[in-house]
Formats: sequence, structure tokens, C-alpha cells
Amino acid sequence: MLIVLHHSATSKDVENIKKTIAKMGLKPVAIPGAERTAIGVIGNQGYVDDTPLKGNKAILEIIHVTKPYKLVSRDFHPADTVVTLGGKVKVGGRSPYLVIAGPCAVESRDQMMKTAGFLKKLGVPVLRGGAYKPRTSPHSFQGLRESGLSLLHEVRKETGLLVVTEIVSPEHVEIVAANVDILQVGARNMQNFDLLNEVGKTKKPVILKRGLSATLEEWLASAEYILVNGNPNVILCERGIRTFETATRNTADLAIIPLARKLSHLPVIFDPSHATGKRDLVSPMALASIVAGAHGAMIEVHPAPEHALSDGPQSLHFKELEQLLGRVKTLAAFVRAKL
Amino acid sequence: MLIVLHHSATSKDVENIKKTIAKMGLKPVAIPGAERTAIGVIGNQGYVDDTPLKGNKAILEIIHVTKPYKLVSRDFHPADTVVTLGGKVKVGGRSPYLVIAGPCAVESRDQMMKTAGFLKKLGVPVLRGGAYKPRTSPHSFQGLRESGLSLLHEVRKETGLLVVTEIVSPEHVEIVAANVDILQVGARNMQNFDLLNEVGKTKKPVILKRGLSATLEEWLASAEYILVNGNPNVILCERGIRTFETATRNTADLAIIPLARKLSHLPVIFDPSHATGKRDLVSPMALASIVAGAHGAMIEVHPAPEHALSDGPQSLHFKELEQLLGRVKTLAAFVRAKL
Amino acid sequence: MLIVLHHSATSKDVENIKKTIAKMGLKPVAIPGAERTAIGVIGNQGYVDDTPLKGNKAILEIIHVTKPYKLVSRDFHPADTVVTLGGKVKVGGRSPYLVIAGPCAVESRDQMMKTAGFLKKLGVPVLRGGAYKPRTSPHSFQGLRESGLSLLHEVRKETGLLVVTEIVSPEHVEIVAANVDILQVGARNMQNFDLLNEVGKTKKPVILKRGLSATLEEWLASAEYILVNGNPNVILCERGIRTFETATRNTADLAIIPLARKLSHLPVIFDPSHATGKRDLVSPMALASIVAGAHGAMIEVHPAPEHALSDGPQSLHFKELEQLLGRVKTLAAFVRAKL
Amino acid sequence: MLIVLHHSATSKDVENIKKTIAKMGLKPVAIPGAERTAIGVIGNQGYVDDTPLKGNKAILEIIHVTKPYKLVSRDFHPADTVVTLGGKVKVGGRSPYLVIAGPCAVESRDQMMKTAGFLKKLGVPVLRGGAYKPRTSPHSFQGLRESGLSLLHEVRKETGLLVVTEIVSPEHVEIVAANVDILQVGARNMQNFDLLNEVGKTKKPVILKRGLSATLEEWLASAEYILVNGNPNVILCERGIRTFETATRNTADLAIIPLARKLSHLPVIFDPSHATGKRDLVSPMALASIVAGAHGAMIEVHPAPEHALSDGPQSLHFKELEQLLGRVKTLAAFVRAKL
Repeated sequence: MLIVLHHSATSKDVENIKKTIAKMGLKPVAIPGAERTAIGVIGNQGYVDDTPLKGNKAILEIIHVTKPYKLVSRDFHPADTVVTLGGKVKVGGRSPYLVIAGPCAVESRDQMMKTAGFLKKLGVPVLRGGAYKPRTSPHSFQGLRESGLSLLHEVRKETGLLVVTEIVSPEHVEIVAANVDILQVGARNMQNFDLLNEVGKTKKPVILKRGLSATLEEWLASAEYILVNGNPNVILCERGIRTFETATRNTADLAIIPLARKLSHLPVIFDPSHATGKRDLVSPMALASIVAGAHGAMIEVHPAPEHALSDGPQSLHFKELEQLLGRVKTLAAFVRAKL
Repeated sequence: MLIVLHHSATSKDVENIKKTIAKMGLKPVAIPGAERTAIGVIGNQGYVDDTPLKGNKAILEIIHVTKPYKLVSRDFHPADTVVTLGGKVKVGGRSPYLVIAGPCAVESRDQMMKTAGFLKKLGVPVLRGGAYKPRTSPHSFQGLRESGLSLLHEVRKETGLLVVTEIVSPEHVEIVAANVDILQVGARNMQNFDLLNEVGKTKKPVILKRGLSATLEEWLASAEYILVNGNPNVILCERGIRTFETATRNTADLAIIPLARKLSHLPVIFDPSHATGKRDLVSPMALASIVAGAHGAMIEVHPAPEHALSDGPQSLHFKELEQLLGRVKTLAAFVRAKL
Repeated sequence: MLIVLHHSATSKDVENIKKTIAKMGLKPVAIPGAERTAIGVIGNQGYVDDTPLKGNKAILEIIHVTKPYKLVSRDFHPADTVVTLGGKVKVGGRSPYLVIAGPCAVESRDQMMKTAGFLKKLGVPVLRGGAYKPRTSPHSFQGLRESGLSLLHEVRKETGLLVVTEIVSPEHVEIVAANVDILQVGARNMQNFDLLNEVGKTKKPVILKRGLSATLEEWLASAEYILVNGNPNVILCERGIRTFETATRNTADLAIIPLARKLSHLPVIFDPSHATGKRDLVSPMALASIVAGAHGAMIEVHPAPEHALSDGPQSLHFKELEQLLGRVKTLAAFVRAKL
Repeated sequence: MLIVLHHSATSKDVENIKKTIAKMGLKPVAIPGAERTAIGVIGNQGYVDDTPLKGNKAILEIIHVTKPYKLVSRDFHPADTVVTLGGKVKVGGRSPYLVIAGPCAVESRDQMMKTAGFLKKLGVPVLRGGAYKPRTSPHSFQGLRESGLSLLHEVRKETGLLVVTEIVSPEHVEIVAANVDILQVGARNMQNFDLLNEVGKTKKPVILKRGLSATLEEWLASAEYILVNGNPNVILCERGIRTFETATRNTADLAIIPLARKLSHLPVIFDPSHATGKRDLVSPMALASIVAGAHGAMIEVHPAPEHALSDGPQSLHFKELEQLLGRVKTLAAFVRAKL
């Protein structure tokens, strides 16, 4: 930690700050400069909670060198984490590129069975489908909720596919965890810390989507909540961020994938459907993410996107998914062998 | 609703879309243009759920003329809503400018009693204080939680001040509502729809903070969740948005205050502490918000900001708050009388 | 300057970096920490160009304590700068609040004379009007250019009003400076450094608008270009920044006004027309900016906004400007006397 | 164009607007709705300048269906444009993937000759190097300017490499065009319309970088300026946009590449150096851009990045570039053959 003082700070200010640091069990080192003094803080073993210093008027800026996360950091866990899904499918490290697919929302038994059957035929191991749907307007379709969970459970039993669904409230953890293989924390809930604590108390794999306006540091700190609670099975999912550009639904931040992998040992996957919001862009971006280093992708597909109750414009038709999967397989093999 | 077709859309496409619109119980009107055709949709009484149309490949864009909210709109409720707090204090419409003040986090009995005593002396009617603290890192102070609520309850009983605290989980609604006068939904939970539904089922006044990256439309749609559930006592609170600028903690979007008041009948207050993150900017921005049309402000104050467990740098000292309140009173009276 | 090293940096890395710093004529101070080493740099008299260090692989981050500007900083020039316009009107410091008004674009002699006459009657000392118009599309009206300048010159001679116009190219400096009293550098040209250098070589007052996505630091560094070239007469103008919010044309960043005034001695004015893009918001935001500490405002007005060739929706009618000016006068006097 | 009226608009308002539209030579079609009326406008052959309508108080919103560009649009020029550089190298359409490389700034004869020699050996056909450097602070290295141009000219003659350099002012067009093969318009000048007009009057290929906060629509409209002036040889270059995320220098918007290619016939290349600002991310993002559909990449390389006078942290070492080029060749061939 570095504490930069105001031009006008007095030597008494410097002494006071040094005393406060000492009380925090740390060691201050003054760095007098031509224009202002700075104080280096050494001796900490992790992130320093700087609150005793923050209100001090002689301080211009406090700069953290240590990060607000530790367990998720590659510094403290150099090897890639490999998460096992449903006891059989692996994601992360050198595991094969993982595809998760399915509709945005669970709408009906027929829709889910059709989709699951198709995915099974294609060899896609994990089905997605939202039972609880966070929607901007209360006048939009809100998901089938508990009956949607039952449908997911049924499809999972009948087809043997693994199932992932979004969880939106801490009180749903038990029922959702009982019905699916993988929990998803959505972008809008990335900083719903009570929810993170609860999913951290299960051992279920958790897909943690990046928030719409979350920095990489905040995203990793949210993952830290889950690990701190005892659940190491976190999969990070980049899904686009909110920027000034409205030509796409969000701005796909592909560069964050290699950077997240550099800073953290956790697996990182990509959601090209939400990241772009446009069907035509799903395939090129899904493929590009493989080259950028993603461990997998989560793709929206629907038997009839033009009648989907949500996210129709970004959902692939079956035929489009089939074509994309062929390319994914070819490209992933090539990248593994040649790049 | 207006549906803009691709340059290449055929007359068969146009017919299909017109049929879909008719099935939705609405009336299509084709607008042939030199470069492309558009289809106007008429006959709707509110927001149209456009999902049956969204996946159609002949469609370039769907433009909503109707908004995703109705109950919060001034179109349907022209008069200002005035919310009554604790049966005695009013906010909104022509009510006097409301000041809410207190520390970011409830830390101790002593801290809260000192603050409450001071506020009472100054005539500030509402005390704020966080019992549940959403913090980026799990290694930071998380709030006193239930024992924080008890402290708030105690202070409220002893001083007669009204109390507001943040609620972060639907399952806390009952206990929080039993202990405080006003519920606050924080920026990170603005789209925690289960939480919005639950606070909507109480009759308690709710301060709904704008999300870090929420548009005005999304913010109003979130308020709509609370009203739809039967609770009309919503107070909107602008608290700064996340932008590229890092010189301030957030970017205070003051222009959204008169615009929100134009589109909605709900009271709008301003939080200059989070909006700026810097003590020096709290006063000028709080005062500016009065002129911009805010119905009140929510300001962080602490007996010893330099030792605050969170948000020290943006918390005022008692003396600073006292000075600011004098100015607020003078300016609010002037604005009421002369502008 | 503080140099933070990677966890894995060796003592040889530390020695190399210390040598490089010494070669730069500065003094390194190592700050060994529990997790990583940092190196403080002292002895600099201003901004350090860190390029000899930037590519070093052992370095995680370089943190500048000194800013990329000096002449514009209040640290080195504590007193407010007051800029004199046309030898008679002052802006900055304790000078009266300045109003600049006029149409977005110079369209015709009639339009300009009508506007100038009206402003003169109201006591507005400075007329604005664009001769060179930067427009997104080449198919939109591009301004009258040289003949627009002649019109401005004529109006200025006939009415005695001071005139400001935007300059878009270094080669126009001579002709524009010969025809108007104040040069304006627009948001899109805030980092057109050749243009900044050229206007810096004149002694004309320069209104420097903040770029659409410029940080405060970049804005001040752009002003530094003008001062470095010998022209101290710079007026900063906040005009809204680009964010995700589309309900307003830009996001008015009012908090940057007191912050810019804290960091710099230059006058700061506000453009409520571009900052909001909506006529209804111009008045409340112009008034709010007075309280936030602006030294003046630049407001678009047009004899017939509904026929304006650009920016009609944000231009006031004469009657609206008159009403606003009355309020500005009342509020500015009140703020001066009472706040 | 669609004109949405306020809820409160009267039938007289509707008639007035219809008259205005008729005066503009267009045809209005009223679309009465349950809540409000809209008016469709038909008969236009291109972008409609809506200024006569914009100030009308009965109008809530004007929605353009036609875009602010035409010549750059794929609607009007369905086939891919292939730009020929220096009479021999092609970019766009099915041309081989193009690599442009070189240092950020021209620093010395030695630096440029070393780099050029290395690129020639690797088969890279185009050398980049900045003679005029737009820098945030006037206290940073500003480029060698004219003597930098001479160096570029010399290197070009000696090695036969094609050369691209940035042009920052309209008055430099002649001298720059005389010394290099390709002109570059930088991000900060994307809306320097006088500059766009001037480079439009040459026939030199122009690399047009996307502005830091430019939408796709604005970027294409800027390209339109060049085409309207008679120069069809425009190459679009995505270089990252400014967002709230500071972990990377900019946010690489790869999805804009396939989208730009869908809307426009112009070639699109990618600059992974500025888009990320971090050496480690250059390779994965350059490779990802191939899959996303880029026609080429512009990459910063330096004989000694740790001593570069600008952009050292994002410049590759020679060895790194060599390794990347091998991968680029392999991947581009694979994508061409198999995806």
C-alpha cells in the first residue's frame, strides 16, 4: 500500500499517519519527494483494509498494491483449477472445450425435450434453461419458476444431460441445488453477496457471470466470496459489458479472458449470445473466444427463436448451432494442436 | 411499436409479420418507404411484449413507443406523489426539502447515539445507517447485520428519529421492516427483482437507488415492480453512475433528476456522498441538486470519518454537516420563493 | 512516481530498475513488502516521462504521483485566473457570472442580427455562433464557414457584442482570430494538439470544451498545451460526457466543476445545451451549475428553434432565455451573498 | 423516418407536422395509436436532415430508419471493397490477411532500419511508425515530425517496404502523402472533419481508426466523409474503445468487426496493441481477430520496448512478433480453408 500525501501535508501529519499504520500492525516507510511526501506500507500478508486511514485530510490518495482477493489469485494457486460437472464433465486447464447450450427461458416440456434431444444427438453435455427470469419490466414473462425447475429435473433424468439454471435468491439455493447440476449467478446478481455466500456453502459448481459494469477486480472479488465459503468450483463467464455502444446489446470484452486467466486459476467461459445480442454475431464471437483462451461457451438455442418468450433475436436455430458446433470442434482441435 | 424491415424483406415477409401482429390482438399498418418498409403497430393499451416477433429474420429493428412501465409514469398519474415517512415526515411534491443523514455503516452503539443526538439537535428527521453492508471484497467489514438492526431499533426508540437501512435479501424483509421506518434498496440490488417484489408487498416507504449502470428507463421499470406489488411509497434516489471518469467515485447525473420528475410522479432524492466519493464535493453537489429539482438528499456523516469502517473519505464531519444544513435551508427556501 | 514490481521480480531486477532511474537523474528508494517490492522515485521537479521504464517485464505497474500538467495546476498558481474578454468582460475568480448565448450555427444575417439585438437588450455580453460546424454526417449542414465568419464580424461591429466561434483547424487560426474575440476549441478537437499549439500562440481567450470521453486529467493536460505555448487565457467548459445513458444527449458531469476548480486556477464554465440535449433540462442544469461553482454558462438560443439547421431540440426560444436570465441573475446574486 | 408525438399532441399539431414534411418534399403517413400518434415519413432516397422538425414541441422522438452514411454502406455496394496498397499489396475481400507492424513512434534511423530489416526478413509488407505523435501531455515526447517523415521516406526507399504514418493536421496532407504509401487517421482525429475532407481529396489509402468513444454509426459516417470527397480507399481499424474497465488500456470491441463488415463493404483491420495496452494480450487478441473476420492487424513492435519513447508496455519484442506471425499464418490459412 502506498499513501500519497497532499503538497501541504506537514511533518506532524506524516507522524500521525505513521502512528496509525503502526497501530494497524504494519510498518510505514516515508518517501519524501520534491513536491510531496508518500508513505509506503510494508509487512501486510494480504489485502489491507484501509478504513482507519481513509478519512485523513492530509492524504491525497491511497494506492493498493495488494488485491481485494487472494484465494482466486494465481499468485497463491499457480495451477489451473479444473472443475468437474456432475461427476463426469470437466472444464478448465487442458480439458476439452466445453459447450453449454439451451434456451434463455424454460417455456414448456415440449420445448425443453426437443432441445435436450437435439443437444444429446450433437454431443453437447450441458443444457441451460432459465426457470427464474430476471426481466427489466414486471410486465414481461417472469419464468415458470418452481414448475420450470421440475421440468429441468425431468429432462435431466430422461436424457442424462447435465443441467444449469440461474439462481436469483439465497432462499432458493436448496431447491435449485436439488434439481440441477450447476448453479448460475447472473450478471445482475454478481454483487448479491448474500447469494454468493449461500452458493459458496454448497459444493455445486457455480457459473459466475460478470456484472454489466463490473471491473475484472470486482468480478474476481465476487468469486472470492464463493471460495471463502468453501466452494472452490467456480467458473467465470464473460458475457459482455455495458458501454456507450448500442449497435450490439453489450460489448464483448474478449481481452478479459486471457487477462482473467493470467490473474486467476479459475476456468473462464464466454457467453456470445448475451455479449452480442445478435444471432449473426454469435458464431464469429464464439469461435474467436476459443482463440482468446476461453475454456468453453454458453450459447442460446431455441427450437423456434421467432416464438421464444425471451432473447429470441440472439438465439440460434438448431441448424445454426449444429453448424457452429462443427466449427467449434475443428477450431478447438486446431488451436490445441497448433497454436 | 414500429417494426423496421430489412432492405431485402419480401412482400411475403410483410404479410407474415402482419399476421403475427394480428394474432397478438393488435393492428398492423404498413409504411412502405423508398429504401425499406416499416410496419406500425396500433391498438395496444400498454407495453407490448414483442417476443413473438423478435426472432424474425426479415426484421431489422423493433422500436417501442410505449414504455416498459406504466404505474410509475406521469402519463397515467399526473400529480406528484407525496410519500409519508413514519406517519409524520413528507417527501415529494411541494413538501419541504428532506435531509437524511448518518454513517455508511452501523458500527457501535456509541457511534449511532452520538450521530443521532447530533442530528436531532440539528432538526434532521431521518437517520441512515447500514446494518447489512454489500462490500466488494469478502475481506472487508461486512456490517453488524442483525445486531446492527437492534442498534438502529434502539436509537430510533430513544431519539424518536426515523430510521432507514439497506435491505439486501428478500428473506430479511420481515425483520428489517419490523425495525426501521424506511427500506433502502441499494444500487447493486436495483435489479434484484425478488427483493423488489418482496418490498413491494410491504407498505413501508422504499428508497430505490439507481443502479451503477442503469438507464433511467430501467430504473423506472424497477420502481414499477414495487408499485405493481401494491406499494406506492417509492422514493427514487440518484447516486451517481459508473463511467470512464475515475476522478470521482461515480459520475453524479444531476440532469436525470428533472428528467425523472418529468417522466414519473415519484419523489426523487440525491445521494451526493456516493455520487462523488469525495468529502469536498458533497456540499456543492448537495446544494446543486436542490436547484436541479431534487426533493431531498441522503448524506453520509460520521463522528470520526478518519476511523469509519467504510466510506470515510466521503463522510462529512459533524461540523461540516451543520454548515451544509444551514446552506441547504437557506437555498431551499430561496428556490421555493424565487425560482 | 511509484514502481510496483511483480511478485516474481528478482533482486537483480530491482538493481536494474534502480540503475535506470539513476540514469534518468532521479533517486530510487526500494520499499520491500511481504508480497512484492515497490520502488519509490524521488527528486523530480515535475511530471516524469516514464518511457525508459515502461517496457520492463519485472514491473507490474507505474503510478504517477505527479500530474501530466503543471502550469494549469493550482499547486503552482494558487490564485484564481481571471480572463478578460475583448478588453472589457471578465470571467473567473470573483467576476460576475458570465452568460454566453447564441445559435449553434450561423445561418443567415437575419438570424444573427435578430439574436444579437435580443441579447444586447437583455445585457448578455457575448454572442456565440458556429461558422465551421463539425457534423457526424457529411450529408448534414456543414456551416457557412468563411461567409459565416464575415457575418459574425459584421454583427460584432454593429452591436458591440463580443463574439465567440469554434475553430476546427490550425490553418484557420489567423482568419478566425481576426474576426472574433474568443476562440472555442470543441469537444471533438480537445486532443487536436496541433490546433491547441496554434491557439496557444495567439493571446486570444480560448474556451476549451471537454472531450466526449476525456478524463479531467486529460482535459487539464490539453489546457496545458495552450499555456505552454504562451497563452494563459484559457476557460474550461464542461459540456457533458458520453456514457451508457441515452435518455440525455450526454451526461452532464457537474461534479467536475468544483473538482476542476480545486485542481486548477482556470475559470470553468458550463454548456447546459450540449450537456443535456433537451430544452426542458437547460434551465434547471444552468441554474444548478451556478451552485456547483461554475463561472458562467454557454447557452444555445435561436429565433426559431423549430427551423434551426442544427441543435434545434436543445435551443431555447427567446422568451425562455429571457426567463432563464432573470433566474440566473437572482440566483447568482444569492449564491454570492449567502452561500 | 418515424416521428413519435407526445401523448398530448393535438390534431392541429399533427396537421402542422404533416405540412412541414410535405415542404421537405416527403410524404407523411399518420399512425394513430391507443396512447399516442406517430407519423411515418416516406419518399426519401437517403438520409433525411431532420432539422426543420427537431424543435417542434409536439414531437417526442424522431427515429431514423435511414443511416447517416450511404457510400460506405453494403446496401448500396454489396461487394467487398479491396484496397490496393502501394500498387502491390491488397487488403479486404478474400485477400490474404495483412500484417502491418512497427514502432509507435519514429525515434531514430537506427531504430527504423533495424525494424524494417527484421520485418522484411519476416515477409511483413507494411511498416508503421509515427512521425507526428498526439500525446496527452505537452511534456511527453511529441515525435520527430518532418525529420521523422524523412526517415520513413528513406527506409521505404532502401527496403522497398510500404510505409504508413499518422496524419494529424489538414495542412500536412501534401507532405505526408508525398513520403508514405498509406495515411492513418488516428482515434483522436476520427471526427476531425477538415482532415477527413483533405485525405478524401487524395487517392492514397487511408486507415481510419475508430474514435475512443465513437459508435459504429459515427465511425462509418466519418468514413463517408472520405468517400464523398472521392477517395474510396478506406480501411477501417478497430483499436478499442474507452469504457469503465481500467484493467486494459481500452476495451477491444471484436464484435464490431463482423458487424462493420455486415453493414459496410470496406476492409476492417484490428490494432491489438492499442486495444489492450498490454504485451501479453497482443497475441491472443490478434489471433482472435482473425477468427472474428478481420482483414488484417496493425501491431506495435520495437527493437527494445523497454527503451521505447512511447507505448513500450504494449510493444512486442522482435522474437515475440516472429512467433506471433508464424501463428497468424497458420491460423489464417486454417480459417480460410476450414471455417
